[in-house]
Amino acid sequence: MTQRVGILGATGAVGQRFIQLLEDHPEFDLVCVTASGESAGKSYRDAAKWRVDTPIPEDVAELVVRETSPEAIPDDVDLLFSSLPSGVAAEVEPELCEAGYVVSSNSSNDRMAPDVPLTIPEINPDHLGLIEVQREERGWDGALLKNPNCSTITMVPTLAALDEFGLERVHVSTLQAVSGAGYSGVTSMEILDNAIPHIGGEEEKMESESRKLLGSFDGAELSMHEAEVAASCNRIPTLDGHLENVFAELTADADPEDVREAMRSFPGADLPSSPDPLIHVFGPEDPERPQPRMDRMRGGGMQVVAGGVQSTPEGVKYNCLAHNTIRGAAGASVLNGELLAAEGWI
Amino acid sequence: MTQRVGILGATGAVGQRFIQLLEDHPEFDLVCVTASGESAGKSYRDAAKWRVDTPIPEDVAELVVRETSPEAIPDDVDLLFSSLPSGVAAEVEPELCEAGYVVSSNSSNDRMAPDVPLTIPEINPDHLGLIEVQREERGWDGALLKNPNCSTITMVPTLAALDEFGLERVHVSTLQAVSGAGYSGVTSMEILDNAIPHIGGEEEKMESESRKLLGSFDGAELSMHEAEVAASCNRIPTLDGHLENVFAELTADADPEDVREAMRSFPGADLPSSPDPLIHVFGPEDPERPQPRMDRMRGGGMQVVAGGVQSTPEGVKYNCLAHNTIRGAAGASVLNGELLAAEGWI
Amino acid sequence: MTQRVGILGATGAVGQRFIQLLEDHPEFDLVCVTASGESAGKSYRDAAKWRVDTPIPEDVAELVVRETSPEAIPDDVDLLFSSLPSGVAAEVEPELCEAGYVVSSNSSNDRMAPDVPLTIPEINPDHLGLIEVQREERGWDGALLKNPNCSTITMVPTLAALDEFGLERVHVSTLQAVSGAGYSGVTSMEILDNAIPHIGGEEEKMESESRKLLGSFDGAELSMHEAEVAASCNRIPTLDGHLENVFAELTADADPEDVREAMRSFPGADLPSSPDPLIHVFGPEDPERPQPRMDRMRGGGMQVVAGGVQSTPEGVKYNCLAHNTIRGAAGASVLNGELLAAEGWI
Amino acid sequence: MTQRVGILGATGAVGQRFIQLLEDHPEFDLVCVTASGESAGKSYRDAAKWRVDTPIPEDVAELVVRETSPEAIPDDVDLLFSSLPSGVAAEVEPELCEAGYVVSSNSSNDRMAPDVPLTIPEINPDHLGLIEVQREERGWDGALLKNPNCSTITMVPTLAALDEFGLERVHVSTLQAVSGAGYSGVTSMEILDNAIPHIGGEEEKMESESRKLLGSFDGAELSMHEAEVAASCNRIPTLDGHLENVFAELTADADPEDVREAMRSFPGADLPSSPDPLIHVFGPEDPERPQPRMDRMRGGGMQVVAGGVQSTPEGVKYNCLAHNTIRGAAGASVLNGELLAAEGWI
Repeated sequence: MTQRVGILGATGAVGQRFIQLLEDHPEFDLVCVTASGESAGKSYRDAAKWRVDTPIPEDVAELVVRETSPEAIPDDVDLLFSSLPSGVAAEVEPELCEAGYVVSSNSSNDRMAPDVPLTIPEINPDHLGLIEVQREERGWDGALLKNPNCSTITMVPTLAALDEFGLERVHVSTLQAVSGAGYSGVTSMEILDNAIPHIGGEEEKMESESRKLLGSFDGAELSMHEAEVAASCNRIPTLDGHLENVFAELTADADPEDVREAMRSFPGADLPSSPDPLIHVFGPEDPERPQPRMDRMRGGGMQVVAGGVQSTPEGVKYNCLAHNTIRGAAGASVLNGELLAAEGWI
Repeated sequence: MTQRVGILGATGAVGQRFIQLLEDHPEFDLVCVTASGESAGKSYRDAAKWRVDTPIPEDVAELVVRETSPEAIPDDVDLLFSSLPSGVAAEVEPELCEAGYVVSSNSSNDRMAPDVPLTIPEINPDHLGLIEVQREERGWDGALLKNPNCSTITMVPTLAALDEFGLERVHVSTLQAVSGAGYSGVTSMEILDNAIPHIGGEEEKMESESRKLLGSFDGAELSMHEAEVAASCNRIPTLDGHLENVFAELTADADPEDVREAMRSFPGADLPSSPDPLIHVFGPEDPERPQPRMDRMRGGGMQVVAGGVQSTPEGVKYNCLAHNTIRGAAGASVLNGELLAAEGWI
Repeated sequence: MTQRVGILGATGAVGQRFIQLLEDHPEFDLVCVTASGESAGKSYRDAAKWRVDTPIPEDVAELVVRETSPEAIPDDVDLLFSSLPSGVAAEVEPELCEAGYVVSSNSSNDRMAPDVPLTIPEINPDHLGLIEVQREERGWDGALLKNPNCSTITMVPTLAALDEFGLERVHVSTLQAVSGAGYSGVTSMEILDNAIPHIGGEEEKMESESRKLLGSFDGAELSMHEAEVAASCNRIPTLDGHLENVFAELTADADPEDVREAMRSFPGADLPSSPDPLIHVFGPEDPERPQPRMDRMRGGGMQVVAGGVQSTPEGVKYNCLAHNTIRGAAGASVLNGELLAAEGWI
Repeated sequence: MTQRVGILGATGAVGQRFIQLLEDHPEFDLVCVTASGESAGKSYRDAAKWRVDTPIPEDVAELVVRETSPEAIPDDVDLLFSSLPSGVAAEVEPELCEAGYVVSSNSSNDRMAPDVPLTIPEINPDHLGLIEVQREERGWDGALLKNPNCSTITMVPTLAALDEFGLERVHVSTLQAVSGAGYSGVTSMEILDNAIPHIGGEEEKMESESRKLLGSFDGAELSMHEAEVAASCNRIPTLDGHLENVFAELTADADPEDVREAMRSFPGADLPSSPDPLIHVFGPEDPERPQPRMDRMRGGGMQVVAGGVQSTPEGVKYNCLAHNTIRGAAGASVLNGELLAAEGWI
């Protein structure tokens, strides 16, 4: 059965990725796009400067852009995807949830709120139960579900696979693509022949979101995972695909082949956008992989790719990669929407 | 008093940097350049494809290139700088030392040999005493001195500054420039819009060389520093300047300002190519620095630049940067040569 | 009916593109791959370092690589595609043609020979008639057919569309991608933050090949087109897609909209790999297009894309673009193969 | 004798270059910096985000930023350099000239006005005589002098050198660096692995400004040069340095060596910032030069560099290059200021 869905903030870079991913989606039918005031009333074709490398779907091009408010969105929309700027989202998303809409949001606000589920469907689908808590506390008919930040989502599936070896501490360095900052976020003068060892708020997001994602939910309350996470985040001159170097301290012995096997066999989810396997793992014969340009589109941009697994004195080090605007943003929200549908929340 | 110096492997990328750095050097007079057989006998101008961004010094352009062998090098050369490929160096350098030449080498062979000093003059000048051991064991009149790998040298001065806080363990990720692989080492098809999470042998070099550099020499034997070092090395699309993310575990408490102060006040060396201060440190008002393009030429490319110092649960994290072909290669050997002169070894 | 085809020089960059384009081809069945001596006898999987962004087709991976000689190639191969280095091709291709094979070659040797057809199927399919002349003169049972250089092929379809306005003289500047030089052809040290205003032999190729392609064949002899062509060729830091600025002097008046219409309506060919339309034309509302990254994959990489048409005192100026390793190399040879099949030469 | 100078729009990218070029200038003493309203009253250090690769001069860092208006600028300033946005400049520059200030401006407004001199001191210093016409017509005590656009200035010195061969027609394609669009003008998402064949207004500037620069002034009126110029302008992923391919049609015969000699011997100006020679010319042994990264800093960024001179059916083709924010912007205005001083206008 098809769900009617909308996109909040549909003209931006992530909004365009949503449209691309929803074209021909087996479960979702895009019927509503919103943007800021000056775009409202225009056709999507006129309101958006389309920059994705596949053409605008014709039916979406002709949708009339709506304002981002409960009044402007049709009542029969089953699910809203949100890629609003976090300041706007922090105001509008609660209003929409109060008005009864279910929102699967990529925006960074409220991710760490104790009653807001932050999920990767293959990792912690049970956290969806927090919606009951949320509805009770906030008196909402709708619901707010978040996916993590793009740099977090690249690493957490591999950490989940390591948890069987007793994950104690994580040091991670990221080499992040410019698209993560939005279309105009990084100027060419900043990044050509350069790298920038700072992305505002990114390290804190990785450090806290990871522990929430790997935490446990007892039906009433969420406990953070105990592992300590320390992150250093860098912007480099790549277009798409975040590459990360992970150092994981483990309580149990784990030789590299054990670790590779744990990653390879980590289960995916039975949802349309979940890749099989969830994690593609390169072995020691391919020490130069994963690489952003070569590996970011695996599994349609939804697969996490790992490689370079080696022992360290306290555990293992390895590299992982995911497409930051697909698995790390729009695709993450769509996948969360699929989980909401599969679990009967919409 | 001026020393007469030569360059082994003078036509390559590092060889050209040697020539650039020796132009107008207050102590060294370049009188001899060697290269592989097919170049021998030509003028340097004809033998080398000059690619440095300053013109070839006229007097060097007219030097006749010699073969790289004891017979071909004049007896009155006081010091030889070596940027030979490590396979060639492993054969020729010992022959030259046996023949009585003193060699300050950037090549990676023999760096970890127990009787070969591996030095950064500002960090461990006392290790030069190993030359006595070396001469005794090998029966040489000359001597072999090594500088560390470019990625090691970028980090070790900052680690030395941290040692007062009890350095226990280091995790480090590197973002390395393409010049580190030599002029033809990285093709454009490999690196444009990409990053490569592997540089052959680099991680092992960082892990072992750091501990040797920070180790102690009792006049007879060298003990490695006890800190554990785990490294992940990446190539990114920058031309020059290695940027590194360091996570240091410390036994003592050290707040970020203490760490910055320890780095800022870490003493340099009283040698012509040693910058003052040794480490330029950016404070919390400049979280985006150091950056390769903006900071690699500080101190004529000889300064180490640090920034982004923040607390972690077990110590601190920070970023550091140095010019990989100046401080990390040719400049390192020249500086070692200055130390040899100052200490009376040549 | 399916033809059995082989690839000469199958392990290189263009060879890999051939394999990618022949996967699922409706008419051609790849049964034979050749490479240099040291690869012969290995499986293709072991012989080639696969670098294309789609996986190796399983059946190709298991083909045994053969030597590039008449003896090593099965007799029942109907058509050979060649991406041999031009030095090798100049020797082997004639031997193969003498032995009865039909060769559709991307190699640059013999393109300007008076009895070798140089074709773009949508532009000058009638030049195939030169094969009769060739067979008569050379006594071959087989045949040799060439496609032009990648920079030529990008421009010539648009010039053909202009010919109705009396094409008199062409000035063209190119901005060419690094893949045009092969995987290792351009080092990163050469091209990052740089451009190189010289590609050996490229300008001459554009100047002569264009006039042959636009020339007329009277059944016995080929006459070159009379237009003068002057080219300046540049390498820039893009991966794929050659962008060209064309200034065309015309004898007839042609306003920009006439020119756009002539390009838009220029007929394609009724062959599997020929796109419809042949030329995608951006209008004045999109002055910034075509762009390499945005437009190189139009029509599966086989479409020529034009834009920026404006009047000049003597005619028009405009920009055009094509994917240099698809439309400009492997795809060009495949399309020529399709023409050979359609016209009954194989 | 030292002149007191100011910079209008001192906080922007070109404004910062002005400051860098005026540090240690033998004739000019920087005493005044202006910026937009929100910066006025702050110290320059606080108002500007300094991005040039040399440190802010200490004395400039402590200057108080003024508003850009006649009232806010001290009367005893002898010369104002302008790098205002052209919209602002079109309003403020005439007010300043009316108030008696002499303005040497890099802004694009009024460049083609018949009574505004547009000069390159080595090319058309006599056009300064237009200031008399300007003062008479406008009733100004001050004066307005313009330098051309960065892409124009790169080519015109070489065209001037060709004029002895009867310059009839020019086709030119540019490969322009991102700094030409200002610090935030080109986003990384636009230009990585890409090129953009359009820069708004740039082609028109090259076509008209070139003819004015090469025109003749009879003491009362300026006549444009009769050569036709057609330009295509492209943005590529380089930081600094515009590279241009020029096709020049000439009435006289000129073999490549004649052309090189004419360029090499073209006279410079006896002014502090004018390089000697004005044009550095690479011969046929260096067909790959000039290149942006290798050649942009010749002559301190003030030299024009040419190469690749070859015959065409109607004349010659060649390549030229200049640093777009030094010779092409701030340095051009400073040089014009030096000419104003030398000729006694200030």
